[in-house]
Amino acid sequence: MSFKINDNEVDIVIAALRPDLTIFLEEWRSIFSRFHLIIVKEPDLEADLQIPHGFDHHVYTKTDIERVVGASLIDFSGHSCRYFGYLMSSKKYIISIDEDCLPARNAAGDPIDAVAQHINNLETPATPFYFNTLYDPFREGADFVRGYPFSLRDGVGCVLSSGLWLNIADYDAPTRAVRPNERNARYVDAVMTVPLQSMMPVSGINIGFDREILGPALVPALRLKGEGKQRLETMEDIWCGMCAKTVSDHLRLGVKTGLPYVWRNGSGNAWESLRREWGGVKLMEEIVPFFQSVKLPAAATTAEECVVTMASLVRARLGSVDPVFLRVAEAMEEWVKLWKRLNFH
Amino acid sequence: MSFKINDNEVDIVIAALRPDLTIFLEEWRSIFSRFHLIIVKEPDLEADLQIPHGFDHHVYTKTDIERVVGASLIDFSGHSCRYFGYLMSSKKYIISIDEDCLPARNAAGDPIDAVAQHINNLETPATPFYFNTLYDPFREGADFVRGYPFSLRDGVGCVLSSGLWLNIADYDAPTRAVRPNERNARYVDAVMTVPLQSMMPVSGINIGFDREILGPALVPALRLKGEGKQRLETMEDIWCGMCAKTVSDHLRLGVKTGLPYVWRNGSGNAWESLRREWGGVKLMEEIVPFFQSVKLPAAATTAEECVVTMASLVRARLGSVDPVFLRVAEAMEEWVKLWKRLNFH
Repeated sequence: MSFKINDNEVDIVIAALRPDLTIFLEEWRSIFSRFHLIIVKEPDLEADLQIPHGFDHHVYTKTDIERVVGASLIDFSGHSCRYFGYLMSSKKYIISIDEDCLPARNAAGDPIDAVAQHINNLETPATPFYFNTLYDPFREGADFVRGYPFSLRDGVGCVLSSGLWLNIADYDAPTRAVRPNERNARYVDAVMTVPLQSMMPVSGINIGFDREILGPALVPALRLKGEGKQRLETMEDIWCGMCAKTVSDHLRLGVKTGLPYVWRNGSGNAWESLRREWGGVKLMEEIVPFFQSVKLPAAATTAEECVVTMASLVRARLGSVDPVFLRVAEAMEEWVKLWKRLNFH
Repeated sequence: MSFKINDNEVDIVIAALRPDLTIFLEEWRSIFSRFHLIIVKEPDLEADLQIPHGFDHHVYTKTDIERVVGASLIDFSGHSCRYFGYLMSSKKYIISIDEDCLPARNAAGDPIDAVAQHINNLETPATPFYFNTLYDPFREGADFVRGYPFSLRDGVGCVLSSGLWLNIADYDAPTRAVRPNERNARYVDAVMTVPLQSMMPVSGINIGFDREILGPALVPALRLKGEGKQRLETMEDIWCGMCAKTVSDHLRLGVKTGLPYVWRNGSGNAWESLRREWGGVKLMEEIVPFFQSVKLPAAATTAEECVVTMASLVRARLGSVDPVFLRVAEAMEEWVKLWKRLNFH
């Protein structure tokens, strides 16, 4: 079931929230330079981007977004500008890493190749139907533990690789406010498949995915009123991740978490963020039961069909809870239309 | 939700499959000596046990089993003799480690206190209803990741801590035959809750559990025809683990896996084991779908009630597949009767 992904099947998508990408790209040079880079300039950013020489890249700007998307409910500002890169890519796989993250380093001080680790996660099967206590059975030196049914050992395709972060952990604003000095220092040397029906928070900071199969499910739909541009002020990737997990479960495909780690410098002032209307906490109490109860029809056999069905369910079940969900449903439908128009002509 | 377990609430249960426990107990002395030890001598073992001085312990033998259990379908031979210790204990918690396992050592060469780690797993809540990508949120230096619903952050009680092994991994005989020289060298520094509805293979090699709540679900029921005494020739703990996970899910309690590691020397000749009628592989293909589909009634509010209900379901749904399951169902019912008689008078 394992296979080989070629470098030319992968785009690396970077959302440029700051103009100067020099340090970011220089630190990643040895890892990124084999790949094509799609850099999406945050629409409100005015200064010119600074991109060091030697990268095969394409920059998309506000002008491109307006030209391609036109009038839209979808908001590509902030970190969400990277979703425009997902639309523009024509590659089978995408890896996306926030530009406040640098390569993590191993004990010898060498940069860890997060891209290669994402690719490895996507090349090898996932095992969502039964838990393996020895973590990823396809990793060198590991296998299926005694009691793992042989009929499930082939696994299924992995369509999403959700990586982690050292240094600044991906906490929400309240948690960061309570633990301002806590740093994530524990390197857990493991990859695992998130089991079927288990909902998870996928962070958009450091991910890889199969764009052809899962792309339509990575949808920029949930924007909070008055949210900021720091990750800890947003929910877009949380919603997107629950859509992606629900679709993967329904299509009998797998999602992995764990390696690769990146070194995250991203900060943001938690107290400042708490001053905003941080409605995400309350919304999650509605969102999680919704996703845990969603049953998609067997007739939905593609991510597009799944997302359209979910949009209807969001409107029907959550629309009366908070009007934000009516906009979410509409954005999901619009995203699928965009995806079809740009990927199937 | 976290609380403190006192040393006198814990029994350590050891199944003595070999007479000389000197090396085993000396290696564990600094860790075990604070606790009461229940040592169950394998019924077919004839030589006297050698137990070094200085351990607060009680030895149970074939005579005790015959006296207490009497005529029974339950087979306490091999590793299953430790279940007799589970019955005899009057403590709230049990930790059981196979006697071919020694303490794992940290980078400095000091023994890792597996007992303290099991206790810590049981003292802190489990989070089975939503996945935390940062592993155990109750561990020092960790927390809930952004997007984790606040209403689920209290967690629920942890009733089973399933530890791992370095050196000899817990593979089945076919896997060991294919990879005779593979050693588990990767120390994954993580504890996690196994999500709700995710079935897992719990190994009996290195476990801790809440005997009062979950004890009746740790049931010695499945014995293969012609099975041997090596772990890789048995299925009893796999069945037991699926019962325990199903009951924990139903009672809305949690199961953790990961730390602690022990250093496992246990060997056994895989080719020799393959010569036996190793029917476990085929049975698993029936067992897993059964457990994945079991729904227990809301009226079952204790582990005893859950196990009795499951026994009926085993008889009804699996009895016609293989007669071994009729014996399994009967053993489960007998186990609950024994448990009630010994624990509730």
